[in-house]
Amino acid sequence: MLCTASVDASVPRWLEGKGKGWITAEYNMLPNSTSPRKKRDRTKVDGRTTEIQRLIGRSLRAVADLEALGERLVTVDCDVLEADGGTRTASITGGFIALVDAIKSVRNELPDPDRFPLRDSVAAISVGLLKDKAVLDLDYELDSAADVDMNVVMTGSGRFVEIQGTGEEATFDDKQLAALLKLAKKGIRELTEVQKKSLGRLWPFG
Amino acid sequence: MLCTASVDASVPRWLEGKGKGWITAEYNMLPNSTSPRKKRDRTKVDGRTTEIQRLIGRSLRAVADLEALGERLVTVDCDVLEADGGTRTASITGGFIALVDAIKSVRNELPDPDRFPLRDSVAAISVGLLKDKAVLDLDYELDSAADVDMNVVMTGSGRFVEIQGTGEEATFDDKQLAALLKLAKKGIRELTEVQKKSLGRLWPFG
Amino acid sequence: MLCTASVDASVPRWLEGKGKGWITAEYNMLPNSTSPRKKRDRTKVDGRTTEIQRLIGRSLRAVADLEALGERLVTVDCDVLEADGGTRTASITGGFIALVDAIKSVRNELPDPDRFPLRDSVAAISVGLLKDKAVLDLDYELDSAADVDMNVVMTGSGRFVEIQGTGEEATFDDKQLAALLKLAKKGIRELTEVQKKSLGRLWPFG
Amino acid sequence: MLCTASVDASVPRWLEGKGKGWITAEYNMLPNSTSPRKKRDRTKVDGRTTEIQRLIGRSLRAVADLEALGERLVTVDCDVLEADGGTRTASITGGFIALVDAIKSVRNELPDPDRFPLRDSVAAISVGLLKDKAVLDLDYELDSAADVDMNVVMTGSGRFVEIQGTGEEATFDDKQLAALLKLAKKGIRELTEVQKKSLGRLWPFG
Amino acid sequence: MLCTASVDASVPRWLEGKGKGWITAEYNMLPNSTSPRKKRDRTKVDGRTTEIQRLIGRSLRAVADLEALGERLVTVDCDVLEADGGTRTASITGGFIALVDAIKSVRNELPDPDRFPLRDSVAAISVGLLKDKAVLDLDYELDSAADVDMNVVMTGSGRFVEIQGTGEEATFDDKQLAALLKLAKKGIRELTEVQKKSLGRLWPFG
Amino acid sequence: MLCTASVDASVPRWLEGKGKGWITAEYNMLPNSTSPRKKRDRTKVDGRTTEIQRLIGRSLRAVADLEALGERLVTVDCDVLEADGGTRTASITGGFIALVDAIKSVRNELPDPDRFPLRDSVAAISVGLLKDKAVLDLDYELDSAADVDMNVVMTGSGRFVEIQGTGEEATFDDKQLAALLKLAKKGIRELTEVQKKSLGRLWPFG
Repeated sequence: MLCTASVDASVPRWLEGKGKGWITAEYNMLPNSTSPRKKRDRTKVDGRTTEIQRLIGRSLRAVADLEALGERLVTVDCDVLEADGGTRTASITGGFIALVDAIKSVRNELPDPDRFPLRDSVAAISVGLLKDKAVLDLDYELDSAADVDMNVVMTGSGRFVEIQGTGEEATFDDKQLAALLKLAKKGIRELTEVQKKSLGRLWPFG
Repeated sequence: MLCTASVDASVPRWLEGKGKGWITAEYNMLPNSTSPRKKRDRTKVDGRTTEIQRLIGRSLRAVADLEALGERLVTVDCDVLEADGGTRTASITGGFIALVDAIKSVRNELPDPDRFPLRDSVAAISVGLLKDKAVLDLDYELDSAADVDMNVVMTGSGRFVEIQGTGEEATFDDKQLAALLKLAKKGIRELTEVQKKSLGRLWPFG
Repeated sequence: MLCTASVDASVPRWLEGKGKGWITAEYNMLPNSTSPRKKRDRTKVDGRTTEIQRLIGRSLRAVADLEALGERLVTVDCDVLEADGGTRTASITGGFIALVDAIKSVRNELPDPDRFPLRDSVAAISVGLLKDKAVLDLDYELDSAADVDMNVVMTGSGRFVEIQGTGEEATFDDKQLAALLKLAKKGIRELTEVQKKSLGRLWPFG
Repeated sequence: MLCTASVDASVPRWLEGKGKGWITAEYNMLPNSTSPRKKRDRTKVDGRTTEIQRLIGRSLRAVADLEALGERLVTVDCDVLEADGGTRTASITGGFIALVDAIKSVRNELPDPDRFPLRDSVAAISVGLLKDKAVLDLDYELDSAADVDMNVVMTGSGRFVEIQGTGEEATFDDKQLAALLKLAKKGIRELTEVQKKSLGRLWPFG
Repeated sequence: MLCTASVDASVPRWLEGKGKGWITAEYNMLPNSTSPRKKRDRTKVDGRTTEIQRLIGRSLRAVADLEALGERLVTVDCDVLEADGGTRTASITGGFIALVDAIKSVRNELPDPDRFPLRDSVAAISVGLLKDKAVLDLDYELDSAADVDMNVVMTGSGRFVEIQGTGEEATFDDKQLAALLKLAKKGIRELTEVQKKSLGRLWPFG
Repeated sequence: MLCTASVDASVPRWLEGKGKGWITAEYNMLPNSTSPRKKRDRTKVDGRTTEIQRLIGRSLRAVADLEALGERLVTVDCDVLEADGGTRTASITGGFIALVDAIKSVRNELPDPDRFPLRDSVAAISVGLLKDKAVLDLDYELDSAADVDMNVVMTGSGRFVEIQGTGEEATFDDKQLAALLKLAKKGIRELTEVQKKSLGRLWPFG
């Protein structure tokens, strides 16, 4: 997974003159990230890609203070070099790291250098039900076998940003939901630690 | 909302010869369903439409017994004549009614007429957090003001099919999640009653 | 057939600053308007649809006083819920009703409220030659069997707006043409009465 | 106007195995056929082009005996090198000449060499009302000024194939219609003579 | 080959306000330029066409003084009526003639009528290796048989503008390269004479 | 530059049943490979990309024995992670390494394991004229300043595969051409050494 972020000193037309910025994401799988080779999206972007891009963008904006960003567009690019079952969630977790890095690089140009445009960290994880047992971070083969698949996006301080739980040709009950959420929280705490280490001195929170 | 379903006696190529059917959905907003008039999707289908279509299809398939359907493709068309905040969930609730109706019309041609291709009913509802209070079935104006928006798809017997909760530029905690889910369940029970009345003698369950 | 019209307070770019308005039409068949289900036009608009849209727009503009409309764009949407052989002509006849209704709703904002932007009513009818006999308002099965198919668009005062007569793999002579036109005129008179009743007090002419 | 026709020994998929052929047309304006230069149709074909192509194809098929053609596709290409008001009608008149020529070249391969696949000749002309006077063969400047524009497609033996009369922002009455048709017939007779001379010994009729 | 050029008194957006013009080219093969009939490029331009267009534009600009042209866009259209192996090079040689003609027609409007916007003539030729022998101006059948195909674009004064030598599934050595270039030069001298004669008094050089 | 190659056990339709394989290439620049960020090719592939892809494919096929490959399609993917002036030539040099690697991995399935499907190595280099001096391997800033830009593709044994020399708004003479070619040959020899080292024991030639 290659996550990079670039800052453009202008916002999309619909946001011009409103004194705030925007964060958007693009997601792409390189053809040899899967076997057999995946055809490139060259004439249209497929529905799954659009859905993932919107999820990444929404998740990163949920912890952002867009006014503190000023009229800037940050584009987070997530290019999958080697696919496994968790590219969607890894894009959010890795995209957050790239986002901090990119914002730090323009810190001196922000409207108020003392008001950092991110309020919290954000990470995402995939959990699933496999033969009625909640399991973490399914790799692709297990993922296909899972009865229920759930992506959870949470902040470093433990609040939910997004919950997407789906039982393709299956359903789940209250107890199973509780087990899935408990496991997801544990995973998010670990991912937040990874982000903290990766950013080192750039980590913007206490 | 105009929900209709049609049955085609052939399946998509990737499913040929596997002895099972498929259920797919198409969603469309008529231009005067909103004010101001919404431009038609005539050269490409936008990401939001694709996302909704996939959700409707997935939800209906979750209660289906695709083998009992035989090699048939059911297409559920949801055309929005007048939009409000809940078109996505109404498409699932109304789409289920159209689906039952369409399957009943080909009942005699099914592989086993005594094995009905639907195992349970399915309905969907939208709940949200508005100034920290869980509210049901937001209309559009409230929807935009809500801090958290959650779509819940459930079966008539009370099992989850899909949970999609999103805090665009907001987050929510465990207690808020519990309140949202409780309210959703109550709404789903009421919608199931509406479906039952609407189908009358066609209602396929006890 | 669902005919609606919406008024937009700005004109297409090529008409800006000329002090006159424009009337355009969009035509669309819902997938379940035919059996078997018709595929949606989602990536391109087919030639037949474009042709019908242009015909509807041209016919409505023929009775319009575009300067009296001011710089406004009226879009007439014709969505076919259930198709028969006469959707093209019904779009004009029904589109005129929606057009009157929409213009009445902005009457107070017109450049000159005493100068109504429509000079006459307009309606359309389909006639055909079936085994050498002129017949009115062919339904779809007869339509396919007809040797000659003719659409006639006329004003309420009996003037021609458009004549489109086609003999697909057939031809016709002067006498047959005369019989077709005579029948069309009779039909238009009846349709004008229907429009008058439907609009009631909104009918803008004597 | 460059009219050419080519014969392909296979028909479109929907006509396979039916023992008959098809005639289709493509119409195109070269960029320097107009001044200022017209942009090429390179990413989509505009509605006007599609409409003209369908008219040309329909007109040529109206005089054809498609069974006598066998399973062959004839494509008539009409490329406008220099545009004036009558390119649409000239495409039909010239396209007929190219069509005869192309069919003659494969005459020996036809199912029955004694049954020529064309039953009659066909030509087209444009007439219009200019200040209430019927005029023939409007060139472009007059065309724009005309109140009513009518294309008439007729066979060499004097039968109608197609009548398309339009009053863009204008209307016309019975008397005016009669004058337009009379003039059109005279013009068609002259064009048939031109076709006859151009084809010389290839002229397939008495 | 039909080469025409038109001058537009405005430049592409990226060149606005820079006080210089641009020369661009469009290349197109008419469907009956080849046998069997070539499908039109109507929904997208294929890679080969784009490559040829860029080559033509680059070659003509290499001899142009774009500042002397002022803020004008010259579009050179090359439409192939009948294809042989050398349409790409003939487009450059013929396009130059059309370009001179078009510029002469606006000579009085140029920033400095005494500074002609072309510094030299340009022509192009195709040479190839056929069974180890350098041959000129391959027609299509020989072209396909050739082991190496080389396009050479040169000015009338003998300088190279572009060399494109390709051995599709073949390679070539120094000696063969020298033979190809020698032959190309000879051909270019002859083509320059043809251009000179064709333009007659319009020839802009001594 | 990320060069990977994958082997597919089926060929494009036009090559089916001919007992030989094909080698094709896809080229893509990641958005953050340049600064400012380059927009992704998501709805159409631009002309420059198509041109580069064709060059890479042609160059690799020039040293291939496609019959020895059997009915296989090798796709070489060149994804630019960080752009400089030489991405086009680096794609060929690096693509060759990936190609060898991919073919070696299916060596046992080839029609004749003793007949290796590559006859020679291939590499490419860019040379240019900068203020009348021939220079090697221009980086991007120098590239833009260069008067003449030449890409040379050569085999490890010193034969030309492709020469593309262009003087955008400039020209060059015989002496300059000779200097450019001499320098290119020297560079190719060095690149061949790099390929040899990189492949180590996989190097298929003596």
